[in-house]
Amino acid sequence: MAITRLPSAGFSITIRIAVPADASSIGRLTTSVGEAGAIVTALDVVDSDPTHVIVDLTCDTADAGHADQVVEALSALDGVDVRKVSDRTFLLHLGGKIEVHSKVGLRTRDELSRAYTPGVARVCMAIAENPADARRLTIKRNTVAVVSDGSAVLGLGNLGPAASLPVMEGKAALFKRFGGVDAWPVVLDTQDTDEIVAIVKAIAPAYGGINLEDIAAPRCFEIEARLREALDIPVFHDDQHGTAICVLAALTNALRVVGKQLADVRVVVSGAGAAGTAIMKLLLRQGVGDIIAYDRQGALHRGLTGLNPAWQWLADNTNAENYSGDLAGAVQGADVFIGVSAPNLLTGDDIATMAKDAIVFALANPDPEVDPREARKHAAIVATGRSDQPNQINNVLAFPGVFRGMLDAHAEEFTEEMAIAAARAIADVVGEDKINPTVIVPSVFDSRVAPAVAAAVRAAAQNPAVTPPPAADPGPADLPEIAATASATP
Amino acid sequence: MAITRLPSAGFSITIRIAVPADASSIGRLTTSVGEAGAIVTALDVVDSDPTHVIVDLTCDTADAGHADQVVEALSALDGVDVRKVSDRTFLLHLGGKIEVHSKVGLRTRDELSRAYTPGVARVCMAIAENPADARRLTIKRNTVAVVSDGSAVLGLGNLGPAASLPVMEGKAALFKRFGGVDAWPVVLDTQDTDEIVAIVKAIAPAYGGINLEDIAAPRCFEIEARLREALDIPVFHDDQHGTAICVLAALTNALRVVGKQLADVRVVVSGAGAAGTAIMKLLLRQGVGDIIAYDRQGALHRGLTGLNPAWQWLADNTNAENYSGDLAGAVQGADVFIGVSAPNLLTGDDIATMAKDAIVFALANPDPEVDPREARKHAAIVATGRSDQPNQINNVLAFPGVFRGMLDAHAEEFTEEMAIAAARAIADVVGEDKINPTVIVPSVFDSRVAPAVAAAVRAAAQNPAVTPPPAADPGPADLPEIAATASATP
Repeated sequence: MAITRLPSAGFSITIRIAVPADASSIGRLTTSVGEAGAIVTALDVVDSDPTHVIVDLTCDTADAGHADQVVEALSALDGVDVRKVSDRTFLLHLGGKIEVHSKVGLRTRDELSRAYTPGVARVCMAIAENPADARRLTIKRNTVAVVSDGSAVLGLGNLGPAASLPVMEGKAALFKRFGGVDAWPVVLDTQDTDEIVAIVKAIAPAYGGINLEDIAAPRCFEIEARLREALDIPVFHDDQHGTAICVLAALTNALRVVGKQLADVRVVVSGAGAAGTAIMKLLLRQGVGDIIAYDRQGALHRGLTGLNPAWQWLADNTNAENYSGDLAGAVQGADVFIGVSAPNLLTGDDIATMAKDAIVFALANPDPEVDPREARKHAAIVATGRSDQPNQINNVLAFPGVFRGMLDAHAEEFTEEMAIAAARAIADVVGEDKINPTVIVPSVFDSRVAPAVAAAVRAAAQNPAVTPPPAADPGPADLPEIAATASATP
Repeated sequence: MAITRLPSAGFSITIRIAVPADASSIGRLTTSVGEAGAIVTALDVVDSDPTHVIVDLTCDTADAGHADQVVEALSALDGVDVRKVSDRTFLLHLGGKIEVHSKVGLRTRDELSRAYTPGVARVCMAIAENPADARRLTIKRNTVAVVSDGSAVLGLGNLGPAASLPVMEGKAALFKRFGGVDAWPVVLDTQDTDEIVAIVKAIAPAYGGINLEDIAAPRCFEIEARLREALDIPVFHDDQHGTAICVLAALTNALRVVGKQLADVRVVVSGAGAAGTAIMKLLLRQGVGDIIAYDRQGALHRGLTGLNPAWQWLADNTNAENYSGDLAGAVQGADVFIGVSAPNLLTGDDIATMAKDAIVFALANPDPEVDPREARKHAAIVATGRSDQPNQINNVLAFPGVFRGMLDAHAEEFTEEMAIAAARAIADVVGEDKINPTVIVPSVFDSRVAPAVAAAVRAAAQNPAVTPPPAADPGPADLPEIAATASATP
């Protein structure tokens, strides 16, 4: 039932090969690569002599195992000598993906005197006298910490801090590329909640915001809540809030396409971890008709005992009819399915039982909750986290603009009003003339997105609407481990 | 007795002034600035009409009070209207002095797939399987944390983390400019030794080295010792080791100039804080003749009781004749005076009592232990930490190259062999044909310094000489507060 992984640039390899200098050699190479299911993207001759040609053949493969198969197929060809295999993704990572640049010249004694001693002493004294000046005179103005303990890295699990660093560096690169935000990876060699809270509090003076990343639920809820309480800068857990913003944006446009109102729809959410919980809270706050939440043990309902506070809160505030059956049963007649959980939980036949003009967001990565091609046969709108399918729901639509706006507003906290404003801004970038069932979110490369999100967040920070408080929130303490932590991060 | 502070680019201001459009107006401005003791460095006409001219006058002043006097003098002139005063040092600090750059392109879907998901997952897995790969595939390869608790910022005292940030940013800019090292400021909102140690251990996975900065003695000794024990990356306290390397380099060349041997000279060191202690340990390790150490309470000798372990160690290992008199008495007949303490402790007459061809390093900033112009009347060689005097001893000669070398060698610790190699490299950059009493160290802008230091440190890391262990070191625990913490950082 698993859908085929397609060749991708993320698994691009360059193979250096010596072949006989005859008319058919190069053709045999490209044919062999094609027959192995890979896609040739470049072929460069690097050297030759009267009898041989040496070429660099670059091709996209589906994964590491597939890359090995391609190399084996080439090696098996008569007269072909595979000299070296380079992995373009690894080459790109050599030495890391970000660096520190000086914004000031240091060519002359005078420049040194202003940027460092003795001139800098005056700037230090000014901040000591007026601490708020740190937002004006230091990197705090534009800098965000990307904090992880490496406990829930992508879909890979608990890899620890060093192995999470490439993700945090990539995140920092995205922050700069899309939001003009300076972000710095802070990967922590501890997974103790108290220690993480203490460390982030201690390092906070240099930062204008904290982006928590890939920290396992339920620890992430307590860490976020305690840091929000302690710090005077915004704390944003991207796996929760970034995902929730993007899902709300996509759902807003999906409902526009099918002509339904949020207040009228019944939503089934698979995955009640960091992402799922945040999505459900935001939808409830926006007045969604009803939600049934699933995690590994089944539907969250009021007949269950011993739930952790987060799940008890969901059981109390969702599932109006107290349904306790299986996921396939829950989606019968539902208007919306949102999956942030695990691959292949539903079939096309299950989707066929949903209400007319069904909306399916199957966001587990890389393999969605339902094969999107099967889902599309029965649902009006299908979205995934995959870049090779229409309607990719990708957090990069949200976090760069959200932090750009918060930094520019000197915001002291991230609020639900900002989340709603950001979601609306993302949705509105897809103009009325462009929106259709395969275009409910803008492209991640749409340069209008981050400025629109930033402006909306800045406005929400400066003029918070008078809104009713959300339903009582569960306390963060003593939450037992929650299994599903998939997020919509691609 | 204090020496006059001279106008410096660190106190450069730009004054926007409207003056009558007559032949003498501009001349009156520059004359007035000159009479006030400031130095005009630029005069730009920004606007004019038939009767008035508006100019931006830029001048170096001596300090903030002097700048005010200059503005007052201009305001008092007939027909002169001072519109705005801009402080160039503050302008340069707006928004901070460093930023994060992406080293990878993120223009296309393919680039995104390699730098972030899905490609990055493979790099994460590779590091999880082989943690040493973090030095190859992440920023750890080239990145140093500049860690401070803001407890001893320059000579300004305990300003706390936010106010120390401009110094740490400047340090990071210098690391990149002179060593090609990516350095990131980590300013901590705690001054508790245990917490600082725990935090630096936790953040270490992202870094290839730790540079401790502006942390008060004696806490700095314990923090450094415990981190060296705990971490597999080098830990370097610049106020200690950077200063000691530069002083050893300068002393090496000074002794060459006057034709004395280190083993024969008697040295008086004023200031037994972080810098002074490190200088003395390195000189003892190099076989200096004798040292007498001073701190605020006087000479460290074996008649004192209740000394902290660091000072007891110095009392036991210096001061062969157990001298207990005052500083002026100690310098009588001494070959070398090294001050890392406080302004104006000695007079020219005191220097006159030193041995023939005396060497004076008066490194307190901005005002040295003795007026260098007075000292120069009696000593053969005088050095200070000031950029407006010959022989500036500046830590920027050491730390960029030291970390460049340690990162390139994948060094797991900073060693005394590296310190000695670095000092020798700095000294040797001043060629035999250039060395003289006013040129015992290279310019901070000499581009040969950092590569030479890096090569020497790399060699010392890869081929540590078999050297005798140093004299028994004092333990770091329970050191009481030490007053003097001046360093040679300019």
